[in-house]
Amino acid sequence: MYMSKMFIPTLKEAPNDSEIASHKLMIRAGLARSLTSGVYNYLPLGLRVLDNIKNIIREELNEKDAQEILCSALQPRELWEESERWSDYGKEMFRLEDRNGRAFCLGPTHEEVFTNIVRREINSYKQLPINLYQIQNKYRDEMRPRFGLLRSREFIMKDAYSFDKDEAGLNKSYEEMYDAYGKIFSRCGLDWRAVLADTGVIGGAGSHQFMALSEVGESDILYCNNCSYAADKEKAEFMLENQVCEEVKLCCEKIYTPDNSKIEELSTFLGEKRSKIAKSLVFKVNGKLVLALIRGDRELNMVKLANELKTIEEYIEMASEEDIRGAGSEPGYIGPVNLENVEILVDREIQQLSNFYTGANEKNYHLKNVNFGVDFKGKVLDLVDASEGDKCPHCGNLMRMERGIEVGQLFKLGTKYSNLMQCNFLNEKGENMPMIMGCYGIGVTRTLAAIIEKHHDDKGIIWPLEVAPYKVIVIPVNHKDEAQMNAAKDIYRSLRSIGLDVILDDRDQRAGVKFKDADLIGIPLRITIGRKISEGIVEYKERSNDNIEEISIDSLLQRVQDFIVKKN
Amino acid sequence: MYMSKMFIPTLKEAPNDSEIASHKLMIRAGLARSLTSGVYNYLPLGLRVLDNIKNIIREELNEKDAQEILCSALQPRELWEESERWSDYGKEMFRLEDRNGRAFCLGPTHEEVFTNIVRREINSYKQLPINLYQIQNKYRDEMRPRFGLLRSREFIMKDAYSFDKDEAGLNKSYEEMYDAYGKIFSRCGLDWRAVLADTGVIGGAGSHQFMALSEVGESDILYCNNCSYAADKEKAEFMLENQVCEEVKLCCEKIYTPDNSKIEELSTFLGEKRSKIAKSLVFKVNGKLVLALIRGDRELNMVKLANELKTIEEYIEMASEEDIRGAGSEPGYIGPVNLENVEILVDREIQQLSNFYTGANEKNYHLKNVNFGVDFKGKVLDLVDASEGDKCPHCGNLMRMERGIEVGQLFKLGTKYSNLMQCNFLNEKGENMPMIMGCYGIGVTRTLAAIIEKHHDDKGIIWPLEVAPYKVIVIPVNHKDEAQMNAAKDIYRSLRSIGLDVILDDRDQRAGVKFKDADLIGIPLRITIGRKISEGIVEYKERSNDNIEEISIDSLLQRVQDFIVKKN
Repeated sequence: MYMSKMFIPTLKEAPNDSEIASHKLMIRAGLARSLTSGVYNYLPLGLRVLDNIKNIIREELNEKDAQEILCSALQPRELWEESERWSDYGKEMFRLEDRNGRAFCLGPTHEEVFTNIVRREINSYKQLPINLYQIQNKYRDEMRPRFGLLRSREFIMKDAYSFDKDEAGLNKSYEEMYDAYGKIFSRCGLDWRAVLADTGVIGGAGSHQFMALSEVGESDILYCNNCSYAADKEKAEFMLENQVCEEVKLCCEKIYTPDNSKIEELSTFLGEKRSKIAKSLVFKVNGKLVLALIRGDRELNMVKLANELKTIEEYIEMASEEDIRGAGSEPGYIGPVNLENVEILVDREIQQLSNFYTGANEKNYHLKNVNFGVDFKGKVLDLVDASEGDKCPHCGNLMRMERGIEVGQLFKLGTKYSNLMQCNFLNEKGENMPMIMGCYGIGVTRTLAAIIEKHHDDKGIIWPLEVAPYKVIVIPVNHKDEAQMNAAKDIYRSLRSIGLDVILDDRDQRAGVKFKDADLIGIPLRITIGRKISEGIVEYKERSNDNIEEISIDSLLQRVQDFIVKKN
Repeated sequence: MYMSKMFIPTLKEAPNDSEIASHKLMIRAGLARSLTSGVYNYLPLGLRVLDNIKNIIREELNEKDAQEILCSALQPRELWEESERWSDYGKEMFRLEDRNGRAFCLGPTHEEVFTNIVRREINSYKQLPINLYQIQNKYRDEMRPRFGLLRSREFIMKDAYSFDKDEAGLNKSYEEMYDAYGKIFSRCGLDWRAVLADTGVIGGAGSHQFMALSEVGESDILYCNNCSYAADKEKAEFMLENQVCEEVKLCCEKIYTPDNSKIEELSTFLGEKRSKIAKSLVFKVNGKLVLALIRGDRELNMVKLANELKTIEEYIEMASEEDIRGAGSEPGYIGPVNLENVEILVDREIQQLSNFYTGANEKNYHLKNVNFGVDFKGKVLDLVDASEGDKCPHCGNLMRMERGIEVGQLFKLGTKYSNLMQCNFLNEKGENMPMIMGCYGIGVTRTLAAIIEKHHDDKGIIWPLEVAPYKVIVIPVNHKDEAQMNAAKDIYRSLRSIGLDVILDDRDQRAGVKFKDADLIGIPLRITIGRKISEGIVEYKERSNDNIEEISIDSLLQRVQDFIVKKN
């Protein structure tokens, strides 16, 4: 298209509330505009990129025989009561009433709607498996919308739901989606890791998050470059050091540690490593006190603790000073020795320690030479966050930690929804069985943001070819020079004739402005037509590097085709 | 795709609440399913048809340099207060609040959002004209959702908005959209008329509705087959009969007409044509009484009346019996003669009558030999509905009346929104001027329904080629016969290789079931492979007629291509 006719409102400055590159560049390059907090309108360039991402998703999912449908955003309350989630969703769910007072929500997700469709139409194992998906708007009333498309309230999502007759079928469906997701995110130009994830409020038996590695990601990911292990920090396990303790276990004794209630202070005071001091954290769960004992250099993992206590993080509260004194201890000096009426949970690494330190349950006193099994007992389990340098739980290689943007997630739902909503089928024996479900999401607008995070420099976006809104931009340096303009139009037409999406920048602007805009909006190839057009020479430049080459107009078409082929 | 893997839940019976063919067939052919009243989920076949319609729309609009964007469905109250429509929209607008109590609506239309985008980005005449569109979900809380996709609460619409620097520009933008709409609806296989329409609540200076002619349409359309005149009955004008009255005007006299207050009764009682009796209708508007006098064989047109009274229909109420007696008249016997304190509006045709009848404002009495200008006065104007057989107001040809489904509408908005929302630009002289706007809608889901209404028979849908979800269905009569199945697969592959969307019905079903489904879902071409495959013979059948031809497999590809080319 001719740029003079295009609506690409580029800006020199990013808006004040934008903190990260993808947000700033999305606005500056005229891809989108905010309507109100967390709600965006996508302008022509942004929509083209979204359409390219959607088409990649469609191609890879259709390849797996998944079928696209399109559901309503309006969902009646009754469906969500069947799945017992109407109240669970809380304030994140947009709710409304129709003119007759019937309650609806704007779908934050579509398990109920898809389950409802399938239970009405499918009743025999002969019709299974089936995998249906849609690409559609989702609504979540985030407490703090921010980071542009990374946390918005109306966003575009691809959600797929598989229905199988047995676990083996679910595993196959899940693996196919896993495979498709990898291809999709690779085609989008992302550096991704599939990490084991907690299943959260959606529930179910297994889950992977597809994470685009990025500094601005909201999650910490531990991953192994030797094997395929990767996990969200909340879920990550690690292999214990194979430590044989040869130290003789000494007798526990009380020592005076005035005003040294913090691990850091105590470590300095004692001249001991933090890993030699055990940290006691006391919580109140359902009115009962629980002490978690971990090494002083570790962080407690609340998800692992919650899973052990068969509850969720929100229901675990720190014990008050009163609670602690009530249990016969002293805030700042808590320890597991001789502590009654408190359940003791002991991290695996504590078991490997000898003669370590803990609080003495008495103000200004700690205990030294404490030994698990000798001085106190408790249940041993993994209670701590893995960190960079811990060993991979599968292969023992050292793990790395990076931040990631969640762009996709797979869940094995099992029969959670099919049981609650009677989504059943008759199996080969004529028995009525619940279908085995999986669900699979991709944040389409998030993916766009993740692509910009990975592919930009200080001048603007550098679109990977396949998602680029246009592949080539043709710039006549002086649009009043007839020879330049004619050559530009010829090149524009010939590139379009081979099926390429091309922009001709015919605007009445200085060349510098045109180059800046071309860099900002990130078109992969730039062809500049200047004075040397009289010698049949044009400039060829790829957005991803700084090389400018003069090439003959005769070789241009081939050169562009080579670039396109190489990148695809 | 192989039909055994496809989700096409066809049904023998239509749902109880379906009254019209498009609704019944949409459900029976597995195109869509209702989630709740007026809210639909589109299944794979339905979505494919919608995508085909959307692509036709895109192609024709892009051809006019309109640019696609995508706006949010969530719209903040503040924008609607700027345009003074937050309260106007009433119960049809779905409203909701976010977690902080801020009010939003689900967009029933997008004038405000588009005006807001353009006013923020465009400020010079150099950037005009611009025409932006989107294809997106709209929400209107209809009082009585019915007729499937013809009146639903969540529906897909294409809405475009043009911004021009002057009226001439608006007229050009409007004409381009008019042209594009004609092409779009013709490509969709509809028999359409562009009718002059009332501008209703959206406001503005001119409007056309694109109507798909159909018995189930909600509007009556008067149109002339001699010239291009067509108008909604609410808006339709007609040419007065060129009647020269040669009757001598007689003196008005009172006659006894006991118990004959209805026109029909009176006509029988008097032995006179209904057109010789004038019908008096009394209304109350803003506390004032108004009498509308029309010929007894005509229907009052409330829109014309409302326009004359500079109000809207909703504010016009029938006068009560008490009101009528208070004005010195008598219900059932009202007339314009000697009626004081009531404004008299007189239809044009009354002026042409001589010696007609009216009520005498006295119980059981009428007046005969009444003459306008002699016995009473009043403002003369067009107050009645046009009907079949009236003369075209442009060329005088007799008009026809048919029902139509509104599938598109064009509005000249002028400066209504740009004034209220300060959507201004600097003109060539540096003056700040409001942009001149137009808006242009197409009901995408309605278009799908209108296509089915026009293209079906008692067996099912007959898709026009361009919108058909698949172009060809290949049916092996006996899927257990290896030769048939292999030939079917070969044909399937060869048709796909030339870029056609093809279904292979590989299901374990009797041939009769397959034929019925193929007819129901309306695939334009059916290729049947039976026993004669051993002689290289297959059956060729077009859905739109009953001819079944045996053709050689060698000529099949060419035959299919001829069909596709002919139809396109």
